[in-house]
Amino acid sequence: MATVLKQPPAATLERLKTAIGAKGWTADPAEMSPHLLEERGHYRGRAALLLRPATTAEVAAAVRICAETGTAIVPQGGNTGMMGGATPFEHGNEILLSLSRLNRIRALDPLNYTLTAEAGCILANLQKAADDADRLFPLSLGAEGTCQIGGNLSTNAGGVQVLRYGMARDLVLGLEVVLPDGQVIEGLRGLRKDNTGYDLKQLFLGAEGTLGVITAAVLKLFPRPREVETAFVAVRDPAAAIELLARTRSGTGDAVTAFELISRTALDMVLTHIPGTADPLSAKHEWYALIDCSSGDSGGGLREAVERTLADAMEAGLVIDATLAASAQQGKAMWRLRDSITEAQKPEGGSIKHDVSVPVSSVPAFIAEASAAVARAIPGIRPVAFGHVGDGHIHFNVSQPAGEPKQGAPRDAYLARWGEINRIVHDIVARLNGSISAEHGIGRRKVDELAHYKSPVEIELMRTLKRTLDPKNIMNPGKVVVP
Amino acid sequence: MATVLKQPPAATLERLKTAIGAKGWTADPAEMSPHLLEERGHYRGRAALLLRPATTAEVAAAVRICAETGTAIVPQGGNTGMMGGATPFEHGNEILLSLSRLNRIRALDPLNYTLTAEAGCILANLQKAADDADRLFPLSLGAEGTCQIGGNLSTNAGGVQVLRYGMARDLVLGLEVVLPDGQVIEGLRGLRKDNTGYDLKQLFLGAEGTLGVITAAVLKLFPRPREVETAFVAVRDPAAAIELLARTRSGTGDAVTAFELISRTALDMVLTHIPGTADPLSAKHEWYALIDCSSGDSGGGLREAVERTLADAMEAGLVIDATLAASAQQGKAMWRLRDSITEAQKPEGGSIKHDVSVPVSSVPAFIAEASAAVARAIPGIRPVAFGHVGDGHIHFNVSQPAGEPKQGAPRDAYLARWGEINRIVHDIVARLNGSISAEHGIGRRKVDELAHYKSPVEIELMRTLKRTLDPKNIMNPGKVVVP
Repeated sequence: MATVLKQPPAATLERLKTAIGAKGWTADPAEMSPHLLEERGHYRGRAALLLRPATTAEVAAAVRICAETGTAIVPQGGNTGMMGGATPFEHGNEILLSLSRLNRIRALDPLNYTLTAEAGCILANLQKAADDADRLFPLSLGAEGTCQIGGNLSTNAGGVQVLRYGMARDLVLGLEVVLPDGQVIEGLRGLRKDNTGYDLKQLFLGAEGTLGVITAAVLKLFPRPREVETAFVAVRDPAAAIELLARTRSGTGDAVTAFELISRTALDMVLTHIPGTADPLSAKHEWYALIDCSSGDSGGGLREAVERTLADAMEAGLVIDATLAASAQQGKAMWRLRDSITEAQKPEGGSIKHDVSVPVSSVPAFIAEASAAVARAIPGIRPVAFGHVGDGHIHFNVSQPAGEPKQGAPRDAYLARWGEINRIVHDIVARLNGSISAEHGIGRRKVDELAHYKSPVEIELMRTLKRTLDPKNIMNPGKVVVP
Repeated sequence: MATVLKQPPAATLERLKTAIGAKGWTADPAEMSPHLLEERGHYRGRAALLLRPATTAEVAAAVRICAETGTAIVPQGGNTGMMGGATPFEHGNEILLSLSRLNRIRALDPLNYTLTAEAGCILANLQKAADDADRLFPLSLGAEGTCQIGGNLSTNAGGVQVLRYGMARDLVLGLEVVLPDGQVIEGLRGLRKDNTGYDLKQLFLGAEGTLGVITAAVLKLFPRPREVETAFVAVRDPAAAIELLARTRSGTGDAVTAFELISRTALDMVLTHIPGTADPLSAKHEWYALIDCSSGDSGGGLREAVERTLADAMEAGLVIDATLAASAQQGKAMWRLRDSITEAQKPEGGSIKHDVSVPVSSVPAFIAEASAAVARAIPGIRPVAFGHVGDGHIHFNVSQPAGEPKQGAPRDAYLARWGEINRIVHDIVARLNGSISAEHGIGRRKVDELAHYKSPVEIELMRTLKRTLDPKNIMNPGKVVVP
């Protein structure tokens, strides 16, 4: 898929080493190794050199040399992506550009509710810096202790609070970017309103490093929530969950920060395999919603609003049973049920995964149709539907049939049908006007799948942008879109 | 500034007329006249033909013919823009493309909190449609009874609720766009999460019709607020206002929907010239904040939270006096003071206007520095600083000195210094890392000013995008950026 590049000549590598200085590069296999393996182990690449510039000027110098010599660059943050976007190809002719030393917080302005951070800052460190200033940086996801903000922005990361605060893209006011020719866009403006021409930063957000290298950003902060209410709710069915979501948004002053759907199948797996978990409700139900609402106002009005909303929904037949966490600890225990689903699926054998979204109102139709369709393909297959249904985002992970051995040949045979099952599910997603990659991006893994589902006009416009901004095809070639 | 184009040959005009049909075009001077005059009367253009297509297919057909024949197109919505972006040039060789007949609401999905509307829909009609479905479409601005959503999106309109809900760009989930070659991007996806490659819609939002024609959009809706609290607050100074803003965001669970700064000079002009207005507070003060908070929760907690925040701020010396509207009518009267400022400035003689923004934390410095600088240039000049200071957006409108005659030669002499005063103010804005066009865009009026202040790298990238997407330079040529 990638352009097959020649190994960069020794002279080019020497120029790059000199430009960054002794601390800023390595060719040591042991040091490079963790940077070459994709998160889930799907890819192990090679690289001609690992660069670790410490300043934007050093990034620009390196990119300039690569542009002059036609050398391909793979930018890398915390290397936690799941689509292989940050992993170099196996041919080893690319330069790996780690942003990890570019890790200063340049400014924190509580009155402007902004934080200016370099690409290599670890997400959790930014959350902490904001919290220390009595502010919230709302981007939050499983890998937050390792992932870097540059990668989060390049992949337009989502996470658990999208419903309230938006995707990573929505949290950016300004960007500093090194273009594929080494020029620098110094766009670190912290403005809420700026209508001076095309919004250039949008090009680089979510482009997975294929159009330039994000080196720093001005990020939006929010008031730190002072009250969080967590509810675990048995709902009649997915349609009732969606209706409850709309009512909770209305009833709480749009205070819903997370709204997750959990099926009985998923909960059973968690209760079976994850020690120390317990069903928060006394009876068994088919579908649950896990709801977080938060407010910066600690006056106690939020809890009342959530209780009122749930009571009304129970009267309307949408909610069967519900419990509101009495403490932060209880809330955490509820979230542990949700966060353990992927782990709990592992002992159940092979799982074919989907990271899809549809309009929120189409979630019930999607779950019904996709569950029926995969069961037609493989009788006994166990759909585990869960996820950020408040955003229309469903992790539709399908476990192999229960009766089969969970390891060895039956598991392998099941996983060999990954592409077939993906196609069945993605066709339904496409029909419902949804997305085949809600959150994880395209990287290397979904390049062909994207070309299959995206309209020719859109794919061609993407290609045109890639060719225009990166005419030498040196920025993360072979990822996202092939020019 | 625009490429000087030749008058389209009669054959081209005939092809266009045939493509759209009898109802869809006019060359009648009387019918065309209102479409040719810019809102504030700064420009009166001419056009070879006015096209009024009723469907996206008709728009595409027209653009295709224009692309084939190298005919320039000026897309136009409600024609309420203030930068001349929707006005054709005086040479009369352009086709004016009105979107006003493309005015259907295609879908309203309360559970997905989305509204799908065609470009020609009047903004107020969309607000009403959302309201009828117990939802809020939060885009709101002075021209809402006339302006059209296509124009709002093409100019990335702001308005009074940006602080809470963002600019027009932030309210869009999907776009349908006719490209400069007549191809159609069918991107009407109503997804909260979609990481499938470059976010192409961003190119067209705020591009003022220079990269394509927006024909329809999927817009985000929100819960309809059930409680609105309006406060009129005397603050110590602009710095205290900014501190109060931060505290109110924190103290109310980020329920602040508008936060406007008003100077005594501005209030005095309103009380003098606008009948039926009264000072809401008993004593005179130098600076005021007008604050709106809103919540979908009608439990009454919001009023308490606002009261508590104001009381604390008074204790901290930020607030001198404050009054909370006791009824919707009182709140309206407070807003009338703010909304009448521009009108009240008129009898005070010439006013040189600025539509600028800076980081919220720099607003006090901007007001102090800009007021001092213009007073050095013209002693006695009266800065009327007001506006959406919650977004760092200041309408810095400077009235001529009080002692002078308000009409005739002194007024003309004052207004002749518009460019000089603009330069003084914009230099300060640039130093504070602000924007010379917070809200109104670039259009025709600020093309040179933008080229002066934007970095060469950014201007060149804008030019590159324009050349790439519109190689024949037929889409609203001469506006925003000259390729």
